[in-house]
Amino acid sequence: MPQDPFDWIDAQHERLRAAGLVRTLRPRSAGADLVDLAGNDYLGLTRHAEVVEGAAEAARRWGAGATGSRLVTGSTALHATLERELADFCGFEAALVFSSGYAANLAAVTALSGPVGSGTLLVSDEGNHASLIDGCRLARADKAVVPHADPEAVRKTLAAHGGRALAVTDSVFSVDGDAAPLAALAGVCREHGAALLVDDAHGLGVLGRGGRGALHAAGLAGARDVVATVTLSKSLGSQGGALLGPARVISHLVSTARTFIFDTGLAPAAAGAALASLAVLRREPGRAERVRAVATGLYERLTAAGLTAVRPDAAVVSVRAPSPEAAVRWAADCRERGLAVGCFRPPSVPDGVSRLRLTARADLSDEQLAGAAATIVATAPGV
Amino acid sequence: MPQDPFDWIDAQHERLRAAGLVRTLRPRSAGADLVDLAGNDYLGLTRHAEVVEGAAEAARRWGAGATGSRLVTGSTALHATLERELADFCGFEAALVFSSGYAANLAAVTALSGPVGSGTLLVSDEGNHASLIDGCRLARADKAVVPHADPEAVRKTLAAHGGRALAVTDSVFSVDGDAAPLAALAGVCREHGAALLVDDAHGLGVLGRGGRGALHAAGLAGARDVVATVTLSKSLGSQGGALLGPARVISHLVSTARTFIFDTGLAPAAAGAALASLAVLRREPGRAERVRAVATGLYERLTAAGLTAVRPDAAVVSVRAPSPEAAVRWAADCRERGLAVGCFRPPSVPDGVSRLRLTARADLSDEQLAGAAATIVATAPGV
Ligand SMILES: Cc1ncc(COP(=O)(O)O)c(C=O)c1O
Ligand SMILES: Cc1ncc(COP(=O)(O)O)c(C=O)c1O
Repeated sequence: MPQDPFDWIDAQHERLRAAGLVRTLRPRSAGADLVDLAGNDYLGLTRHAEVVEGAAEAARRWGAGATGSRLVTGSTALHATLERELADFCGFEAALVFSSGYAANLAAVTALSGPVGSGTLLVSDEGNHASLIDGCRLARADKAVVPHADPEAVRKTLAAHGGRALAVTDSVFSVDGDAAPLAALAGVCREHGAALLVDDAHGLGVLGRGGRGALHAAGLAGARDVVATVTLSKSLGSQGGALLGPARVISHLVSTARTFIFDTGLAPAAAGAALASLAVLRREPGRAERVRAVATGLYERLTAAGLTAVRPDAAVVSVRAPSPEAAVRWAADCRERGLAVGCFRPPSVPDGVSRLRLTARADLSDEQLAGAAATIVATAPGV
Repeated sequence: MPQDPFDWIDAQHERLRAAGLVRTLRPRSAGADLVDLAGNDYLGLTRHAEVVEGAAEAARRWGAGATGSRLVTGSTALHATLERELADFCGFEAALVFSSGYAANLAAVTALSGPVGSGTLLVSDEGNHASLIDGCRLARADKAVVPHADPEAVRKTLAAHGGRALAVTDSVFSVDGDAAPLAALAGVCREHGAALLVDDAHGLGVLGRGGRGALHAAGLAGARDVVATVTLSKSLGSQGGALLGPARVISHLVSTARTFIFDTGLAPAAAGAALASLAVLRREPGRAERVRAVATGLYERLTAAGLTAVRPDAAVVSVRAPSPEAAVRWAADCRERGLAVGCFRPPSVPDGVSRLRLTARADLSDEQLAGAAATIVATAPGV
């Protein structure tokens, strides 16, 4: 018997350290001392006066917490308003708000994988977000992981299965920022009577008319065989998540989804902030176009300078680094020059390729964009 | 092939409806029109002026959202301050804040179930919260579910296993409000070199000196083989969760816990509110005593009137109802008379017994307490 039941943690830590994979937290200060190409505040709304006031006013009016599960005391009229507004904005029949996008994805995959014993097959893109993967692990259903963004592979998998199925995909993949072929996927699903679940975390606020999301852009919003999840923590600058879909799907989740039933409702301040962000976005739809233009501008400058990047379909620009160590050093060099960039290394990147992950923001000026690109090029590791 | 991939939802809904198990949301208004014995705002802090201002001020200073994973841009100095204060208040070496208590539990169980292949056994109380159960499901480890609050059963299971193990328990069980035998569990774990993970969601703010929690009360806070999780959403009146434990355990989670790495950081407003609540609780430790006295008072009045209830070890008082339908009617009758009570039915109660779930609040007056008890007794279903 070990005297010290956590002794294995030291050994594992040593292995991570040797592989350059230990992560440490670097808390930031309140002052915006860096140009931020690392966060997911795509529309520049998290510090918008109306959004901050939306949070503060909701806390004053409703209290600092929801005080219980949405099924007990945790549902306020504010949650209901946010749900109506999200559904309406994105073009779905109904919506259900969760405490995080992660929780919404766990709920969606588990609750939509059919009644136990139905033999439902979950067909999951290999590039899907961790929360969708965890949802698949939690679901009592068979799973098939399919090659990335490959409708033909989904078709073959559905045909071979022949029964009930739910295809699961990110709309915009969080690591490389590339978009899923949603129209083709929906076509394949319909051919085989399968349902389609799309995580639009990185599409809401960025894609579609005025930022209505990837499903809206693909003409799939409101379809009876399509369900979307979104987060309130990226374009909407807040915290929380939501599921969007047919009303009967929403009712079903209310009665059955464990991360809805057994979780405290979203804090009123977060709901109030998200509502305020939606109001700004309705009034200023150009923010969605601007963030896409900034992303494309970044990509063009970086590739023109010889760097290898993925053409962005939304706000995320992924730039290849030769190794985890080089990626860490590159990001640190940028930071020293006043630029915050994301740095993705294993195990966050399942393919093992380290990259800088840059995120465009609608409130970045052309000068900031040019300066940021110049810094990234100047600090790039020799290949 | 089904034409309508969600047709099964209608059939399942019909089955739930027939069993009286459909749930619907009833959003509340901002006015406090009901006496609330249903929420988990045990200390009456969620609408406390300092707590509300803590939320508002944090949103103003830090923005409405954390803007990214804690490992990217989502860690602020505010999160670090909250982590130090939580660890210090509860008597642990370090703390790590999550977007919810649910996420903290998923992280704790999965990340502490040992390196893959270590043969770690998870020993889980059958009454544990859904989030611990989901953590066990997600963990790549063997599981043993043991009878409720039974250290002897844990001992036998550990002895039969003979290898690495993590025992997992609520400190106060959310349905019946009874306490786990923590000292005995810790003794059994130490005998067998097992680690102990305790979810103190319902103990923080209620048990221990000045509300320092069940681990502090049991003399286990800060032990090197014990880890606690807490929520910020109950006694602290906010949203979020935290893991408390040895610093090396915290570092390990930072590098490996999926619901930490792949989730947006807790919204600053929620962190600010929780910090303000901790400050109030430090200044007014009597709130913890008061909530326990209110719970005991409720229990005594109800059982004196002939109702069957579980003697409360903390703030939750569970009262038996003869059937799901009777429980629903009972709760509705209370509500009509101005009293909000919780109503737990299957599948939220794994044992199938429906109950009213009453929660004591430190800010309830003796008159409100007496009135609430009288209402519950007057509306009780005939047995
Ligand atoms: C694609 C995707 N889905 C879901 C999530 C989880 O959302 P949240 O952070 O709001 O929990 C994230 C990132 O955080 C994401 O990138
Ligand atoms: C025992 C217990 N653990 C964990 C949780 C989850 O915490 P949170 O609601 O903050 O996600 C709850 C209730 O919500 C609970 O009752």
